[in-house]
Amino acid sequence: MPLTPEQFAEIEALRAAPRPTLRAVSEGMEAHLYRAHEVLDHGFVRVIDYMGDDAAIVQAARVSYGAGTKHVSNDEGLIRYLMRHWHSTPFEMCEIKLHVKLPVFVARQWIRHRTANVNEYSARYSILDREFYIPAPEALAAQSTVNNQGRGALLQGEEAARVLEILKGDAARCYDHYEQMLSQEGQQGLARELARMNLPMNVYTQWYWKTDLHNLFHFLRLRGDVHAQYEIRVYAEAIGRIVKDWVPLAWKAFEDYRLGGVTLSAKAVDCLRRRLAGQEVTQETSGMSKGEWREFAAVWGE
Amino acid sequence: MPLTPEQFAEIEALRAAPRPTLRAVSEGMEAHLYRAHEVLDHGFVRVIDYMGDDAAIVQAARVSYGAGTKHVSNDEGLIRYLMRHWHSTPFEMCEIKLHVKLPVFVARQWIRHRTANVNEYSARYSILDREFYIPAPEALAAQSTVNNQGRGALLQGEEAARVLEILKGDAARCYDHYEQMLSQEGQQGLARELARMNLPMNVYTQWYWKTDLHNLFHFLRLRGDVHAQYEIRVYAEAIGRIVKDWVPLAWKAFEDYRLGGVTLSAKAVDCLRRRLAGQEVTQETSGMSKGEWREFAAVWGE
Amino acid sequence: MPLTPEQFAEIEALRAAPRPTLRAVSEGMEAHLYRAHEVLDHGFVRVIDYMGDDAAIVQAARVSYGAGTKHVSNDEGLIRYLMRHWHSTPFEMCEIKLHVKLPVFVARQWIRHRTANVNEYSARYSILDREFYIPAPEALAAQSTVNNQGRGALLQGEEAARVLEILKGDAARCYDHYEQMLSQEGQQGLARELARMNLPMNVYTQWYWKTDLHNLFHFLRLRGDVHAQYEIRVYAEAIGRIVKDWVPLAWKAFEDYRLGGVTLSAKAVDCLRRRLAGQEVTQETSGMSKGEWREFAAVWGE
Amino acid sequence: MPLTPEQFAEIEALRAAPRPTLRAVSEGMEAHLYRAHEVLDHGFVRVIDYMGDDAAIVQAARVSYGAGTKHVSNDEGLIRYLMRHWHSTPFEMCEIKLHVKLPVFVARQWIRHRTANVNEYSARYSILDREFYIPAPEALAAQSTVNNQGRGALLQGEEAARVLEILKGDAARCYDHYEQMLSQEGQQGLARELARMNLPMNVYTQWYWKTDLHNLFHFLRLRGDVHAQYEIRVYAEAIGRIVKDWVPLAWKAFEDYRLGGVTLSAKAVDCLRRRLAGQEVTQETSGMSKGEWREFAAVWGE
Repeated sequence: MPLTPEQFAEIEALRAAPRPTLRAVSEGMEAHLYRAHEVLDHGFVRVIDYMGDDAAIVQAARVSYGAGTKHVSNDEGLIRYLMRHWHSTPFEMCEIKLHVKLPVFVARQWIRHRTANVNEYSARYSILDREFYIPAPEALAAQSTVNNQGRGALLQGEEAARVLEILKGDAARCYDHYEQMLSQEGQQGLARELARMNLPMNVYTQWYWKTDLHNLFHFLRLRGDVHAQYEIRVYAEAIGRIVKDWVPLAWKAFEDYRLGGVTLSAKAVDCLRRRLAGQEVTQETSGMSKGEWREFAAVWGE
Repeated sequence: MPLTPEQFAEIEALRAAPRPTLRAVSEGMEAHLYRAHEVLDHGFVRVIDYMGDDAAIVQAARVSYGAGTKHVSNDEGLIRYLMRHWHSTPFEMCEIKLHVKLPVFVARQWIRHRTANVNEYSARYSILDREFYIPAPEALAAQSTVNNQGRGALLQGEEAARVLEILKGDAARCYDHYEQMLSQEGQQGLARELARMNLPMNVYTQWYWKTDLHNLFHFLRLRGDVHAQYEIRVYAEAIGRIVKDWVPLAWKAFEDYRLGGVTLSAKAVDCLRRRLAGQEVTQETSGMSKGEWREFAAVWGE
Repeated sequence: MPLTPEQFAEIEALRAAPRPTLRAVSEGMEAHLYRAHEVLDHGFVRVIDYMGDDAAIVQAARVSYGAGTKHVSNDEGLIRYLMRHWHSTPFEMCEIKLHVKLPVFVARQWIRHRTANVNEYSARYSILDREFYIPAPEALAAQSTVNNQGRGALLQGEEAARVLEILKGDAARCYDHYEQMLSQEGQQGLARELARMNLPMNVYTQWYWKTDLHNLFHFLRLRGDVHAQYEIRVYAEAIGRIVKDWVPLAWKAFEDYRLGGVTLSAKAVDCLRRRLAGQEVTQETSGMSKGEWREFAAVWGE
Repeated sequence: MPLTPEQFAEIEALRAAPRPTLRAVSEGMEAHLYRAHEVLDHGFVRVIDYMGDDAAIVQAARVSYGAGTKHVSNDEGLIRYLMRHWHSTPFEMCEIKLHVKLPVFVARQWIRHRTANVNEYSARYSILDREFYIPAPEALAAQSTVNNQGRGALLQGEEAARVLEILKGDAARCYDHYEQMLSQEGQQGLARELARMNLPMNVYTQWYWKTDLHNLFHFLRLRGDVHAQYEIRVYAEAIGRIVKDWVPLAWKAFEDYRLGGVTLSAKAVDCLRRRLAGQEVTQETSGMSKGEWREFAAVWGE
């Protein structure tokens, strides 16, 4: 359980004190505010603040396009139009601020998304908690034999047990040593900024992370993808469920055009056209490499 | 007067409908929401939305620094500490969205601040209004004789009258021609994306502009500076008055460390140290160029 | 002709002085260095500097993926793989610096691409030249009757003549007045930063513009698109021809996956699958709006 | 020694093959290309590519300011002027690409500088080497007793020995376990993307890192500062020595205005003025907090 009773009480106190505002309010998002959505064994995602809603996207687009947008009959149609034509700036007009607790190796992937604001807990300044990510049995996977960058079947029996024992044992020992090195009893005590380097990368850290909706969608598309590492994908999925309640129309357009969408190369367009015209197309006649064809056939059949 | 009665009514309607929120609320900012702060002859700045307050800055910093920050006695002290040490990320946790109406030549300077989100009224899509910036007498200045990039004394008498006549006449004529070219009566009508090129750069445009507090402070420091062009400085000043009500502690720190602050080069530090030790320092003995010395002496005396 | 004889001589002098370097060299790009590619009536694009080549993209990817990438048989295959899977960071390892002369209304669209470095000629500091974009007959188009943001048929006969007369006349008169206001003969002379506001937006400006290859591709895709305004599209096309010589493998992948590629929504994927299975699909049974269907049918037929 | 004989040979081969280019060439930088500058026990910094030199900064500024800049007598004066007045865009016209090998905990600080391009070695895809940062005796410091975020005296005798033993032992054991979990002999072998989480944060990673000179100076100022952690400061210092050879005029201005410069708050300016006028100023009469006064007095005396 990632939260302490004190933290639960603090959240309930924050949720008990609504105040009037003249800003755009998303009812769906108000229901999420401050609450912790648990992810992995000790992680969470919490919405700390947000700006805007579906209407704010439309409003920004109407500034851009002026009265001319009036004949797009409704908000949903306009939002779908913007998403379809990659008009990203109206989506940038919504902003979200999250409090996330996550393992360091996940944080290292996450931070690669540069268009965001971050305040991370400082292990130079403070002492990290004794919390490490240990995969559940259904996440303990072998190296894929076909994909250098993926997982294959789940580990079984003794091998699984051995791995868990290693991960738990090393985490515990490294953390014990971290504390011993820091200790000032009978010794000077190593600097925190040095001692932290002894902790393995499954230790949990936390940060405030703030980004706009356009960049969040980009993050969700890449990190929610089936090729993303499971341990970051579950964060993307948890955030996705929040976004769905925040901006339901934008989410629906995102699902249709990005999550469920497919990008075709010129060659793939040509192959599909030939098929639609009744011709047979094989890898040999497609002009694609074997890798491209494999990906093409996975969607459209051999 | 930049707003129509319909726009005033729309603003009042928006302000008449407070809704409950669990988010951070800045009372000072709520008083500004949607209202138009007039700038120049037809321009304005309006707050459309905001995220965070002084407490949000502190909260983000405490995530970074953990319990260790508790012995900075209070929020104001911590905010001053962050500003003094250029810790910019906590300030990035606040966000503002403005609706701005401004002349195109001002917009061209403004847009150089890249870390912001913008939706500008599109003159490809829509027709611009007949509104042009014509300087008031107290802004109608001659070229500076000492600064290639600045203004000198005010224009007087006939010269001032001649300039105003030119600016008004050319704006009116160009706009008349813009309408004639667009007209579809008895002719096809030129494409809007082409016709707009006939408008002079004092025509007004408008946009939604969204940025975080750190980048806003950077904008306000550069564009509110005495060397900035008057026509953008008045926007920076209007925004500054809004920010002061939004995050009063952060504003005070910004005033002390940035607006009222001074940056000294190593050479300047050395000169001041010598003076404090009772030595006389002149341009010749300072190691500075004439230009540097002039700037130094303007603050510290010859 | 956009260049003066002095400028031609300067370019030839720069091109006459090769120096040895240990950096990656792209022969295709060396042939372009400093030379002006003419665009529109007075504009140009010149390569001032570049960093990297196709091999640099591969090299950066191999740092990321280590020895594992070796079994992608060759550079072209790896570059295509990176493009297909939206791995943008290796493309960011190439950089280009251009000198561009362009009308102000084109510059205003261009600058919306924020991930770039820009140094623009300052009309606060200096005096702009008497050069204005006047469309050639084949670019003088009417407003589209179906697209709010596009052009229709070319203007003909008297209407075309009238428009050209207006554009030329207003440009000349505004520039004459610009000079009169600036003049210090018998008067003070208006500040340059004010006088410039009298110039229409087809006046030419110039800038140094520097960006990485990933962001350049994004620019070329959006601004080289058939829906982009003709006056910026011709710049994108000129740059595209340069990029093709600079990084031929990356350009080929970009052409196949981006320029010639198509993005399908989940609904469109479903429609194509049904068609491939021999079913008929109409707008009514597609689940798409009329607008979406129109765009779908334009590629795949009714 | 961070490089293998094969790597040395590869560097020498790259350095043995100069090619002609028409681009700007910095002789000082050519001498650095590809060579590894050793940092810490296994780390290095290598220049892979660069764009521009001191003259490129001046050239970009002259585009901005046109002929008007001619009366700044020389390049050095103009570069100093740009640095003094925070004109950052001309410095952005130079670019550098580095290959860096560094411990993960250093990489986590480094990556917070967002305006850069990065390709990091992927531990999802490849297997990390058995290389860990173990502090030299002169870097093995105790926690500071006055600064939550800093180091105090060096550890001595048995405590120092104990810490080194822990760091070495845990690194070795964790890496052994990493290999055991990955092994496919007699077992499936854990996925690389999971196994890596068992490695402590002093393990070395490597990346290609590319940024412009303005953002590099910002990095060097913050990370080369006396308050930065020693383990990143040594990288900043190594890069600083390279930059000095690359753009000597810009480096000199950076040293004078940034590294050796001091920023004064309005209150501090007031205190100095009073002292220059012969008055005594103490913390009580300064208007500063104790913390501010301590920092002020460290530069200007009590």
